[in-house]
Amino acid sequence: MTQDIRHFAEELDELKQRLLLMGGLAEERVRAATAAIVARDQDAVEAVIAGDEPLNELHKEIDARSFRLLALHQPMAVDLRAILAAVKINSDLERVGDLAVNIAEAGRRYLKHPPVKPLIDIPRMAGVAQGMLRDALDAYVRGDVPLAQAVLAKDDTLDALKDQVFRDLLTFMVRDQSTVEPSLDLILISRHLERVGDHATNVAEDVVFMVSAKDVRHTANS
Amino acid sequence: MTQDIRHFAEELDELKQRLLLMGGLAEERVRAATAAIVARDQDAVEAVIAGDEPLNELHKEIDARSFRLLALHQPMAVDLRAILAAVKINSDLERVGDLAVNIAEAGRRYLKHPPVKPLIDIPRMAGVAQGMLRDALDAYVRGDVPLAQAVLAKDDTLDALKDQVFRDLLTFMVRDQSTVEPSLDLILISRHLERVGDHATNVAEDVVFMVSAKDVRHTANS
Repeated sequence: MTQDIRHFAEELDELKQRLLLMGGLAEERVRAATAAIVARDQDAVEAVIAGDEPLNELHKEIDARSFRLLALHQPMAVDLRAILAAVKINSDLERVGDLAVNIAEAGRRYLKHPPVKPLIDIPRMAGVAQGMLRDALDAYVRGDVPLAQAVLAKDDTLDALKDQVFRDLLTFMVRDQSTVEPSLDLILISRHLERVGDHATNVAEDVVFMVSAKDVRHTANS
Repeated sequence: MTQDIRHFAEELDELKQRLLLMGGLAEERVRAATAAIVARDQDAVEAVIAGDEPLNELHKEIDARSFRLLALHQPMAVDLRAILAAVKINSDLERVGDLAVNIAEAGRRYLKHPPVKPLIDIPRMAGVAQGMLRDALDAYVRGDVPLAQAVLAKDDTLDALKDQVFRDLLTFMVRDQSTVEPSLDLILISRHLERVGDHATNVAEDVVFMVSAKDVRHTANS
């Protein structure tokens, strides 16, 4: 192993570790936003809205690292695919951070009204989405295709929960006008959580491509 | 100019032309989805829902082209940034195509009810979002930073329109329960259109990075 190759391997490993860190942060922000709404904790909601900076910094750093690796080492095959995957995953994680802000912003409005209904489905959706994100990133770091495929399979669960939330809240809204505004925000929150799952799905698809050079997007299950 | 460099320049130019084609298709699908809803044309709504395949094929093709260019030519500096930008823009355009489907799906539900209100703001939002997308792609192909910056400035217009739509429809929903379901779908449509603008913004940011190697994301205006 030459010095250069060892150096490249170390830098690629560092890149993956930074992505893992970013994924952990993004996941934590989704969890915090949802928990704040369930606990009706306005300060915690505001903390999520104000706290996007560390993720944004990581986003820039990881893009710069990816660019440097491509420019200096001109990697081939699986290494090239791993870096391109990192560039895409980085964008997905940054959007997850934005979605945590969107969730908290809808939560801020929601907390101005009395509770519409017990929020059971919302933390459940958040839990599924967070789990998908965590598994997708583990799959990236380990190059684990079966784990990535398990993530793809979970997207339907999240869609079904979102549709359930929509139907439930529609019933409330049609029956009682005072619930229209807060119900609307819960519907938006459930859609933001579904999009967190979509980003996890994107990450999982990138993992399959990275490992197998096979493009699984736009097939029957995606 | 060596054979290889000329070959690379041609391939990069071809990649950009394919992205332009994809951008045109994505924009057209957003236009078609919105026009179908305004015209209350159910067949046209269904055609948008069923018509995602050409964009998905282009998405895969452009990713494969980008990968091949990186692997075979190991480009540096602005060329490397142009290809990385292509990879990201490709993802953004594919999502715009998905959003056209989301708009049409909400439209399908919306058309089951009598009209809630004249849809003036919805085609206006679509027009702004389409214009942003078109300008962002022109800016990419021409490397035109001022044009990209003009796109970034327009995002606020779209946000303001979205908030206006939200407030208007909320009034309808609270006053008259029969408008709850269709109003909800119009709100979702306006959010999908806002996200089309977000993707155009992403493209514009990539253009600034490509040309100037300057990361303008997460600054005060973004």
